[in-house]
Amino acid sequence: MLKKNKDLTKVMLRENEIPQRFLNLNFYLNKYLGKLPPPPLHPGTKKPVGPEDLAPLFPMELIKQEVSMEEYVEIPKAVREIYKLYRPSPLIRARRLEKALKTSARIYYKYEGVSPAGSHKLNTSLVQAYYSQQEGVKRLVTETGAGQWGSALAMACRFFGLQCLVYMVRISYEQKPYRRVVMELFEAKVIPSPSKQTKMGRKFLKANPKTHGSLGMAIAEAIEEAVKDKETKYSLGSVLNHVLLHQTVIGLEVQKQFKLIGDEPDIVIGCCGGGSNFSGLAFPLMVDKLAGKKPRRRFIGVEPKACSSMCKGKYGYDFGDTGKQTPLLKMESLGSDFVPSPIHAGGLRYHGIAPMLAFLHQEKLIEARCYGQVEVFKAAEVFAQTEGIIVAPESAHAVKAAIDEARRCRARKGKVIVFNLSGHGLLDLQGYEDFLQGKLK
Amino acid sequence: MLKKNKDLTKVMLRENEIPQRFLNLNFYLNKYLGKLPPPPLHPGTKKPVGPEDLAPLFPMELIKQEVSMEEYVEIPKAVREIYKLYRPSPLIRARRLEKALKTSARIYYKYEGVSPAGSHKLNTSLVQAYYSQQEGVKRLVTETGAGQWGSALAMACRFFGLQCLVYMVRISYEQKPYRRVVMELFEAKVIPSPSKQTKMGRKFLKANPKTHGSLGMAIAEAIEEAVKDKETKYSLGSVLNHVLLHQTVIGLEVQKQFKLIGDEPDIVIGCCGGGSNFSGLAFPLMVDKLAGKKPRRRFIGVEPKACSSMCKGKYGYDFGDTGKQTPLLKMESLGSDFVPSPIHAGGLRYHGIAPMLAFLHQEKLIEARCYGQVEVFKAAEVFAQTEGIIVAPESAHAVKAAIDEARRCRARKGKVIVFNLSGHGLLDLQGYEDFLQGKLK
Repeated sequence: MLKKNKDLTKVMLRENEIPQRFLNLNFYLNKYLGKLPPPPLHPGTKKPVGPEDLAPLFPMELIKQEVSMEEYVEIPKAVREIYKLYRPSPLIRARRLEKALKTSARIYYKYEGVSPAGSHKLNTSLVQAYYSQQEGVKRLVTETGAGQWGSALAMACRFFGLQCLVYMVRISYEQKPYRRVVMELFEAKVIPSPSKQTKMGRKFLKANPKTHGSLGMAIAEAIEEAVKDKETKYSLGSVLNHVLLHQTVIGLEVQKQFKLIGDEPDIVIGCCGGGSNFSGLAFPLMVDKLAGKKPRRRFIGVEPKACSSMCKGKYGYDFGDTGKQTPLLKMESLGSDFVPSPIHAGGLRYHGIAPMLAFLHQEKLIEARCYGQVEVFKAAEVFAQTEGIIVAPESAHAVKAAIDEARRCRARKGKVIVFNLSGHGLLDLQGYEDFLQGKLK
Repeated sequence: MLKKNKDLTKVMLRENEIPQRFLNLNFYLNKYLGKLPPPPLHPGTKKPVGPEDLAPLFPMELIKQEVSMEEYVEIPKAVREIYKLYRPSPLIRARRLEKALKTSARIYYKYEGVSPAGSHKLNTSLVQAYYSQQEGVKRLVTETGAGQWGSALAMACRFFGLQCLVYMVRISYEQKPYRRVVMELFEAKVIPSPSKQTKMGRKFLKANPKTHGSLGMAIAEAIEEAVKDKETKYSLGSVLNHVLLHQTVIGLEVQKQFKLIGDEPDIVIGCCGGGSNFSGLAFPLMVDKLAGKKPRRRFIGVEPKACSSMCKGKYGYDFGDTGKQTPLLKMESLGSDFVPSPIHAGGLRYHGIAPMLAFLHQEKLIEARCYGQVEVFKAAEVFAQTEGIIVAPESAHAVKAAIDEARRCRARKGKVIVFNLSGHGLLDLQGYEDFLQGKLK
């Protein structure tokens, strides 16, 4: 049986194997490392923020999850019911890619693009919409870069009967018009950011009327909108502990899938904007490293050169938004005013990285790597031509790193590489068009 | 176990349950009905065409399959290897849709959009590319409407090392520019049809310089190109027996999936352009009807009002292309010169229907139904908002029929409805945009 399973190309789990609980890395950091990422600080008092500081923004259950020290957090039944539409997602052995690379590595990818929203983002948007609805919230407001997160939240809001307002980074709004159509089909309202709808937006536009926008600006507008109205809460697609927590459903499934085929990953790879898809894959697989059972297992977070907070940022307290309204987060950051160039991987255009990931990077538990846009699309082209899937420009960063690692394995004993294919690129084809025509910078 | 399986939302099979053989309906028509669809005729002699007539167009193995009377046809191992990327595809219970409709029906959809090409078309393009490569063909040339077929053939050609040339119906080329990008990413050459590249194209353009094009015209150009060059063959995405045969992998899986959950379909639905996705789902499920075991099982083929060959066409011999180069096919046809209006469901803009389906329709083994574009998009909107999936405009026709059938079940004992969700609509969002803005006709 074991040998036979090892020959699988697509490792599927059954519906009843969808995890029932998320895994909370803080529990293990405390247990094995004896320390935790520094807490968010109130920008006025410089003291750790309490639940009451966050209550205007988030439902209480998510605030509790944000600071939870429990080992596991239960996944609501209503959320698992919708997970069944696409979870467990497949773990696929990239056999044709391996062959094309002439590598001795075994390359696996976890394919989150099977989600009806097209990416891993639905894993958390469903939880956030569910708890918002449970606590009587009427509307969620958020920002989106490439639109993956906005689509996922719009869909989740529609499922749970909430209104949804999305500030979409202007350059993405223009590059990816069909993302807006997707959100509107789910009855969300979409506004290009910076906009004239908010004080913050007007300020950003005054400073630079032609700005491409950034996630930091869009967050600022969304937060301003959320605090104005008691029945509206804010929803974030990455960075915060509770968001990363919800994504661990990915890695928990991957663990079961590797067990099924009797294999184990040596190298774990994901792209990093705020860091949620990478964390979701990595955290469950990191427990064994923390426990000393897999000390040589490597974790690689991949960023764009145009916006590389882990590779080039400074570790310290900074604001999460360009409006300087959020609590101070201890992260590796390029500065909350940083406006990255308009690369196609709009989801990676965030000035900081999740405090949890910055901490792990500082602790040398994860490695950071960054690539330029053209080499990333080149890797995506190789992947499409061998595995058939057109990946999102964000996910293409993980593909590039996986290919590089696999190439290093050519001569040596094969390593096992797993990367998170966080979403498909079917709404990002302008980027591919520019790449094919040699117009990418 | 049985009860538990009946509660499944997403019915998955294991990789080793991918069918090893296609099912040939002709075997069963001969066995149970004692008659067969009339054969294609040579337009000159009016006699049945022989293998030598088709040899300039198709590889010999596919010609053999076209006339095979065997019960099963083996699926090549190399093809099954690639099927593993997305097959077995899920059968999903549309629980939230059922709830929204307040129906007592159980609605299932077979989701072929999980294919990396985005639709069922890859099921046959892989087989066609494989046998072409085996027989020394260097290049395949084809036509495409909405681009689903062109994408699938481009991908298959890239996997098997063949060149690929696609004539894309001009209106779709303009409506869906990103489909071209997908094909080009797989190194196919894409030409809007009618074009100045072929005699036929020049003739069509001369007759109407502003023509939207049609599948019939694009087929004519592709065939002209194929017969010019010995190392080039023509490839068709629907209509012919061997194409329908390859799609039976869908229905064979569905049979296993229903067995797993201990349920059985009463009503089987698919959209029909040439008829391949409907046939793929329906044929395996029709065997029990032919055998008298399921005499009341219904089969419904759904067409657009704008191009409804089964509902409005004439049953008789007609050409498969507007250039009148193909053998005469006995089908229900609107006439090989018919140019349908530019609806978004470009894949359904074919003047005829597969001879096998026309025959089944005439024998009253299947029912035909047709819908207008707006009601179809309305159904797609309901489906997206309940099930999350944005379906292709073609597949939306099947959604509409499934919803109508389910509504009729409200008061009565629940029927089991299964429809083929043949592809996603992520490259058809202009249609949704037009629908949302009330611009659709």
